[in-house]
Amino acid sequence: MTTVHPILLAGGSGTRLWPLSRKSYPKQFASMLWDKTLFQQTALRLTSSKQLKFAPQIILTNSDFRFIVADQLQAVGVTVGPVLIEPEAKNTAPAILAASLLAQKNDPDAIVLAAPSDHLIPDTANFHEAITIGMDHVTNGKMVTFGISPTHPETGYGYLKLAKDNLDSAGSSSVTHFVEKPEYSQAKKMLKTGNYLWNAGIFLYKAADMIEAFERLLPNALKLTKDALENAANDLGFLRLDPEPWANLKDMSIDYAIMEKVDNLVAVPYRSKWSDLGGWDTVWSESEKDSSGNAKSNGAHPIECSNTLLRSESSSQEIVGLGLNNIIAIATPDAVLVMDKNRSQEVRKAVDYLKGYSIPQAEFSQKDHRPWGWFESLSLGDRFQVKRIYVKPGAALSLQSHRHRSEHWVVVNGTATVTVDGSIELVKEGQSVYVPLGAIHRMENSGKVPMVLIEVQIGSYLGEDDIVRYEDIYARK
Amino acid sequence: MTTVHPILLAGGSGTRLWPLSRKSYPKQFASMLWDKTLFQQTALRLTSSKQLKFAPQIILTNSDFRFIVADQLQAVGVTVGPVLIEPEAKNTAPAILAASLLAQKNDPDAIVLAAPSDHLIPDTANFHEAITIGMDHVTNGKMVTFGISPTHPETGYGYLKLAKDNLDSAGSSSVTHFVEKPEYSQAKKMLKTGNYLWNAGIFLYKAADMIEAFERLLPNALKLTKDALENAANDLGFLRLDPEPWANLKDMSIDYAIMEKVDNLVAVPYRSKWSDLGGWDTVWSESEKDSSGNAKSNGAHPIECSNTLLRSESSSQEIVGLGLNNIIAIATPDAVLVMDKNRSQEVRKAVDYLKGYSIPQAEFSQKDHRPWGWFESLSLGDRFQVKRIYVKPGAALSLQSHRHRSEHWVVVNGTATVTVDGSIELVKEGQSVYVPLGAIHRMENSGKVPMVLIEVQIGSYLGEDDIVRYEDIYARK
Repeated sequence: MTTVHPILLAGGSGTRLWPLSRKSYPKQFASMLWDKTLFQQTALRLTSSKQLKFAPQIILTNSDFRFIVADQLQAVGVTVGPVLIEPEAKNTAPAILAASLLAQKNDPDAIVLAAPSDHLIPDTANFHEAITIGMDHVTNGKMVTFGISPTHPETGYGYLKLAKDNLDSAGSSSVTHFVEKPEYSQAKKMLKTGNYLWNAGIFLYKAADMIEAFERLLPNALKLTKDALENAANDLGFLRLDPEPWANLKDMSIDYAIMEKVDNLVAVPYRSKWSDLGGWDTVWSESEKDSSGNAKSNGAHPIECSNTLLRSESSSQEIVGLGLNNIIAIATPDAVLVMDKNRSQEVRKAVDYLKGYSIPQAEFSQKDHRPWGWFESLSLGDRFQVKRIYVKPGAALSLQSHRHRSEHWVVVNGTATVTVDGSIELVKEGQSVYVPLGAIHRMENSGKVPMVLIEVQIGSYLGEDDIVRYEDIYARK
Repeated sequence: MTTVHPILLAGGSGTRLWPLSRKSYPKQFASMLWDKTLFQQTALRLTSSKQLKFAPQIILTNSDFRFIVADQLQAVGVTVGPVLIEPEAKNTAPAILAASLLAQKNDPDAIVLAAPSDHLIPDTANFHEAITIGMDHVTNGKMVTFGISPTHPETGYGYLKLAKDNLDSAGSSSVTHFVEKPEYSQAKKMLKTGNYLWNAGIFLYKAADMIEAFERLLPNALKLTKDALENAANDLGFLRLDPEPWANLKDMSIDYAIMEKVDNLVAVPYRSKWSDLGGWDTVWSESEKDSSGNAKSNGAHPIECSNTLLRSESSSQEIVGLGLNNIIAIATPDAVLVMDKNRSQEVRKAVDYLKGYSIPQAEFSQKDHRPWGWFESLSLGDRFQVKRIYVKPGAALSLQSHRHRSEHWVVVNGTATVTVDGSIELVKEGQSVYVPLGAIHRMENSGKVPMVLIEVQIGSYLGEDDIVRYEDIYARK
């Protein structure tokens, strides 16, 4: 059994699933259809298999998401290989190259599976079967892309044109070229020919072949990426690529940079259910529906509606639809989107609009994820703010002080180790502590269970930037 | 100048403007289109006039709303006459009769104007002009109803059929009968004849004439109502009608009980803008709109929409509409309604549906109004709850204890006078106090400005019914 080295791309942040997915907490980390997030599902899918052996996964993400990645993997009990931090987003080509170089360093003959972490692939057995078929092609010197048999003239996906040379009984074929997201009429034509597959953006190849392709097609990108990897810094268990060479890399998709240009590309069909969940219309398509075509979350109530998606993303918020047809309505505590389902691909307009007015909901979630856990603002008044703060076992906030506010902390779960001006005390559930204005303080959870506290801030200025940091185990300034 | 005795009906609670209007905080107390609530606008409209003299208003409401009434009147500086508490809702006839009896007691020749407190009548001068015309008819032995010239075949209103006898140059006529909310085709026909007015449900009459009409048509109702008024109890400045005779009264509208049956009814037209704001479609009609027919609140963003109403009722929640046509979407922090605008008259379905599942948002607001102020739940966790509590100057919560929770209070505005197990202390902004489980405690605001505090409750049971009351200035049990 040959080993597959999975590479998971988890650094992207789209806008099409706003307001659930935001720049600060994108789609791959959200529970779109099931309890587990898309990222967790992807990681689990590439952990064990009857017919395949998986090496520890290489994860690519960015600095903001690194602790979300670590938390979500821990929650489902998946141990991975290195987590590479991209200093800035450069699209898929540099990321895949960096991870391929790393895989090859560990195993000169490494076969790599590079996959997005935000796709829906519920049929794991069938997916592993497709990879197994792909392995044969790779050992025969090919690079493999996985294609999905189109079920309808979708305009939201790219297509792969097949050579119709049928390399095996599974229907694998050489790829003649890539087709960008088509117009509807073109999509209809392609569907009719039976000669096209949807491009799932999942690739299987020998790391050495990919590196050779870069050497030939983009030698400068290879050099810069090698530099970024060689000078990568170990940062709290993450591997941070060197920002300097990385900054000089061009933004490139792996399709455009490499896959469309190589002549040994084979498409292996994956014949079961797949979706990129690339818009709310797709989420609607993939959701369980009632007899009128309505899909809904808990707390959502379609009354005399049809073909409508209603979601409430909070247990304290109900959403009711009355007499709607073909509408999508997504309610979060701080932002609500209501749209014509046919406009699902235009959600970016809403996000850009809000950004134009500097409305934070455009990009930021109410829950703010930090290395030590997260916080959310419960109430913001004239001279006060109430926050709920969650600190992971073993985690600690920085040693800090504020110039404009005092704070009251009430522990409601677990035990906090609190430092205030040099004195340290344990604060248990039901106890409180006061941090005067200017006091140098720190909150830690040295316990074994999560610690949750309610913080009441009082002062004339309550911005996150009123902070002086003295020490931080996460090396933040 | 003869004096008009205004009677304001402020006890109703409709469902058609859910989720903004709820049973616990209905439409008349909400800011629908301007800063002032409909109730406040109504009270101000009947306070002073160039051509009319108004006696102090008699307000009719129910026990739950009495402090909201008092607060809202105080906020706009209107001093009223007695506030009558209806022990239970019996529709308009008993309420109007009770208030008319009270008006006559104060002034045997009292002329009464009975009006709902949830209508939109922006043109006060014109309204006063109509009342002045009505006064002439009343002094000539008539009872007056005000009719609105229909602008379209509205199916949401009742109509008055005119005798076309034109009693004066203002277009007043005798009323031959009342027409219930019609079908569209019937409404169209009525509009065509020019012989109908909308029934605004506002009446002007001599109190003695109304009492005489009840004597003749419903003598038993008169007797019961007289009993209820004679045995009314003074309750913290409110006049609480005796519940026993009141309970035996039938539920009756004044239209049905009296106005449709008297033969001296005259309709005086009011020719300016009027609306009962009886549904979200009407709120949309009455709102300022952009060139595509969209109306919106702060925090609401229609993008490529038409004829749509988008409202966010909270400063911390944004709502975006994308590509919508003829949709109404109303977002509150705990409930969102999205509907086809043509279904505006069916919002009750949504409310009934939620009630069927015992979902509190059907009837209760997030803000819970109490005699001493209000509170709202900011966060409800497994063993804790965070509340924001607002106490009016001079107000006090009951002396109480809890069996299942301890409480931390952090004052964020004003000063609290706090009693815990017999010891009393002043707690200033930025200070906190701890109330152990079982301690007998009270929170008061003896200051001159509102007091706001954040309460963090911790315990195994956090229901409102875990309370033992020892003393209460509002005589609650």
